[in-house]
Amino acid sequence: MSTPATPASMTRRELLTLIGSVAGSSASYTAMAGMGLTTPSNYTGPIKLEGDPKGASVLILGAGLAGMVAAYELRKVGYKVRVLEYNTRAGGRNWTLRGGDSYTELGGITQTCGFDKGLYINPGPWRIPHHHHGVLDYCRRFGVALEPYVQVNYNALVHSTKAFGGKPQRFREIQSDYQGQIAELLAKATQQHKLDELVTKEDQEMLLESLKDWGALDEHHAYAPGRESSERRGYEKLPGGGVSAVPVFSKNIIPFSPLLHSQLWGAIGAGQNFEMQTMLFQPVGGMDKIGDAFKRQVNDLIQYNAKVTRIQQAPGKVTVSYVDAVKGGAPRTATADWCLCTIPLSVLSQIEIDVGDDMQAAINAVPYAASTKVGLQFKRRFWEEDEHIYGGITYTDLPIRVIAYPNNGYHSAGKGVLLGGYMFGPNAYEFTSLPPAERVRRAVEYGAQIHPQYKTEFDNGIAVAWHRVPWTLGCLGVWTDERRAEHYQNLCQIDGRFLVAGEHASYIPGWQEGAVLSSLDAITRLHQRVVA
Amino acid sequence: MSTPATPASMTRRELLTLIGSVAGSSASYTAMAGMGLTTPSNYTGPIKLEGDPKGASVLILGAGLAGMVAAYELRKVGYKVRVLEYNTRAGGRNWTLRGGDSYTELGGITQTCGFDKGLYINPGPWRIPHHHHGVLDYCRRFGVALEPYVQVNYNALVHSTKAFGGKPQRFREIQSDYQGQIAELLAKATQQHKLDELVTKEDQEMLLESLKDWGALDEHHAYAPGRESSERRGYEKLPGGGVSAVPVFSKNIIPFSPLLHSQLWGAIGAGQNFEMQTMLFQPVGGMDKIGDAFKRQVNDLIQYNAKVTRIQQAPGKVTVSYVDAVKGGAPRTATADWCLCTIPLSVLSQIEIDVGDDMQAAINAVPYAASTKVGLQFKRRFWEEDEHIYGGITYTDLPIRVIAYPNNGYHSAGKGVLLGGYMFGPNAYEFTSLPPAERVRRAVEYGAQIHPQYKTEFDNGIAVAWHRVPWTLGCLGVWTDERRAEHYQNLCQIDGRFLVAGEHASYIPGWQEGAVLSSLDAITRLHQRVVA
Repeated sequence: MSTPATPASMTRRELLTLIGSVAGSSASYTAMAGMGLTTPSNYTGPIKLEGDPKGASVLILGAGLAGMVAAYELRKVGYKVRVLEYNTRAGGRNWTLRGGDSYTELGGITQTCGFDKGLYINPGPWRIPHHHHGVLDYCRRFGVALEPYVQVNYNALVHSTKAFGGKPQRFREIQSDYQGQIAELLAKATQQHKLDELVTKEDQEMLLESLKDWGALDEHHAYAPGRESSERRGYEKLPGGGVSAVPVFSKNIIPFSPLLHSQLWGAIGAGQNFEMQTMLFQPVGGMDKIGDAFKRQVNDLIQYNAKVTRIQQAPGKVTVSYVDAVKGGAPRTATADWCLCTIPLSVLSQIEIDVGDDMQAAINAVPYAASTKVGLQFKRRFWEEDEHIYGGITYTDLPIRVIAYPNNGYHSAGKGVLLGGYMFGPNAYEFTSLPPAERVRRAVEYGAQIHPQYKTEFDNGIAVAWHRVPWTLGCLGVWTDERRAEHYQNLCQIDGRFLVAGEHASYIPGWQEGAVLSSLDAITRLHQRVVA
Repeated sequence: MSTPATPASMTRRELLTLIGSVAGSSASYTAMAGMGLTTPSNYTGPIKLEGDPKGASVLILGAGLAGMVAAYELRKVGYKVRVLEYNTRAGGRNWTLRGGDSYTELGGITQTCGFDKGLYINPGPWRIPHHHHGVLDYCRRFGVALEPYVQVNYNALVHSTKAFGGKPQRFREIQSDYQGQIAELLAKATQQHKLDELVTKEDQEMLLESLKDWGALDEHHAYAPGRESSERRGYEKLPGGGVSAVPVFSKNIIPFSPLLHSQLWGAIGAGQNFEMQTMLFQPVGGMDKIGDAFKRQVNDLIQYNAKVTRIQQAPGKVTVSYVDAVKGGAPRTATADWCLCTIPLSVLSQIEIDVGDDMQAAINAVPYAASTKVGLQFKRRFWEEDEHIYGGITYTDLPIRVIAYPNNGYHSAGKGVLLGGYMFGPNAYEFTSLPPAERVRRAVEYGAQIHPQYKTEFDNGIAVAWHRVPWTLGCLGVWTDERRAEHYQNLCQIDGRFLVAGEHASYIPGWQEGAVLSSLDAITRLHQRVVA
């Protein structure tokens, strides 16, 4: 690739940045591919900020992942960095609740987590896709141990109150029976020459061969009770050992019509989505192991309990007013050459701030999603002991939406904690309006429709309704295509000496990767401005 | 359930055993279901052997899982137990090779494993399905820590030398494009009224709705480049953060005809098979952690280096002759009231043994599968670092069949070990005939067609060809339906005071669960005979 205007001294990264800023990211990607870089990601390895910032100072607002990424990387290249954080802890939504932890929500109700030692719930992010290269690379660099997060569990349940008399079904039966009957239908249509206009004769032969294998069809291209279907949906009696070993094949295939109308097939695609495809990870011990790792790097830069009340710009500097979030008192100020703000827009939109109309409109434009997560402790891991469900997710049309089993401590004796509900939308509003104890009570009541053991095994619970979390007032920024077209680039620009970062300034809303990549993008542009 | 002939003192288990022995296992299962036992497995919890064996002695041949299960359970209820084992170690095919381990195959070639500390390969079993209740329950009881074994990795590769110019494809692209185009084809046929005879109008509406969701079809029910397909097959450029965040949707869908003819769709069903469905497990640290756990229980009962040469029955006793497998010398004998033999049939069929013609015919009837496993150490985990493949399996039509990435130590610096080949059938025979170093060399050569990094990163390797393993002469017993009909029950009966156990005496050949369940079934029947 030749670009006549390229200065000879330009690094490849600088060149790519230039192409990107002139022609948009699509052009940038094409250029990268042409140069032999094939990772289709914003993240291509540890950030390299070249050039001397000559002691420039940056005030970072918020010690979540976006803020701590920036603090870590900017200090490393010579910036004077200071971080103001509202909470008494670092991490933001990267958050894990364990026994003894307390949390006070908007309205003043305090919950204290009653989980046994070693058990936890992640009220915020709880999984890391394998293609979230930024987050994963920080885990690697900081030695955060990872273990598999299980999204799809064929032995977990799918449940609809409107289908099969409300009786939960095994995922593997729904998955196998849907796929098998799709294959049978297409095979039948092919054999009856109904597809002759759509598929060539040569392709039809290979199509039939593939359908047989993929759909577990029998020799007559039927998805029928017997060996083939049992080797997908499971057996009536499992094969065993010795004289009583003969397996009994599955006799009951769910008929296609009720299967279609059950809508339980929706669970199949859910686990095939790019964001949910294997491998997914979770840090060993809780998601906050990532926050902790960052905190170990930048804790000396963080001032906790600092509630930002005003952000002022003047030529050459930014001044931020803040009060002690616990004790209150008179506002104090912090001043720096630049300000990187990672405060959620839900909160930032309520703070007086000197930015242009475009950025202010963007800050005001993004609503925050309601969601609620309920962690439930039970006296024993009945889902493993009674039902052989190890990790993964059960789906339901009840307001709790999911029951997610712990992806660690398999076979542990003693108590166990699962995610007893992860509500979004209207259900989340409903749950948010209830006192925490009532949220927990209802999650137990709903869950008992799926696992009757809930009634006798429930021990205690905790419920985080994100609209009532004082420092985010919601779970994540909700973008639509229209909103992005109008506001996204305005939100991400540098306004004077102020710019923002966080999941809300990304195309990966609600994921830690959005926060990390947004932060890296912001400090890259900030640094270019500083060393220019 | 009432059975007039049932003695009042009969336990439920005894009753079930009786029903099973009279009417076959299908009747037994129906009876169990009627009595409220719903676990569709031979294994319903720790074995309960009731009644006093009054000091009866059992000689167990082989200290693999089947032998050690029997030794552990029989001693616990009062039997005098002794185990003869050919090897210098317990576990049998439950076997892990680590740096420093030596292994001498038939023909005399000794390989010494050169892996770095903490790295290993399991030449035998390497995964445990969640429905292998027997193995899992022993893991639970003995405190063997488990971690997820990853079978399906959407970011791993599928490769055919005959398709796409030999260029490996991503599993997620094959999976998404096959499913998507199946859905599109069926949607098209539905919309063109080609299925009116096969599907009712009401079902057609729901079918279209489900196909759209399940197949990631767009608003026109097409599987086409764009948002929906990208959210399955992946993006041209991933969504990011900040100003350069805009994702680029995937532009290239693999056309249906070459996709069909590539036969790479075969990899989809492979991971949906009941035995490969999530969750699967592996013991933390290597499969032999299970063997080790059993050994801790029964090591004092095991005599190592004991090569059985003759099994004689006389009224009331069994006498086994054996020689020192290392030093040779004159045969010695061991005598007991009963003998449970777990020696693989491939070996047992070469030992003179006093059993009836039916059992001898069964012992002689079962051929053993050839298979070869090759463990390769590389200087770095390039599959993670370069390609973001964390665990799981790449499939190929090359003789190596698979490349299986380690499901542990994710992100580890330093060297890494993967399974560089798992050959079966003709490919295994070919590899077995080669010296071990040549097996390793070819595995590297083949693998380099998929991962070019092999060429520079290969460090060392080890290859176990199961037909040359002196104590099994093959990987597993191969049963056909015809062979089972003629020989299986004869193999499993008690012949005088002799009976067999092992994966070969099960309907789960080649799996540890077969060995465990076969052993539990055998000792249950033996005990009934003893206490009768």
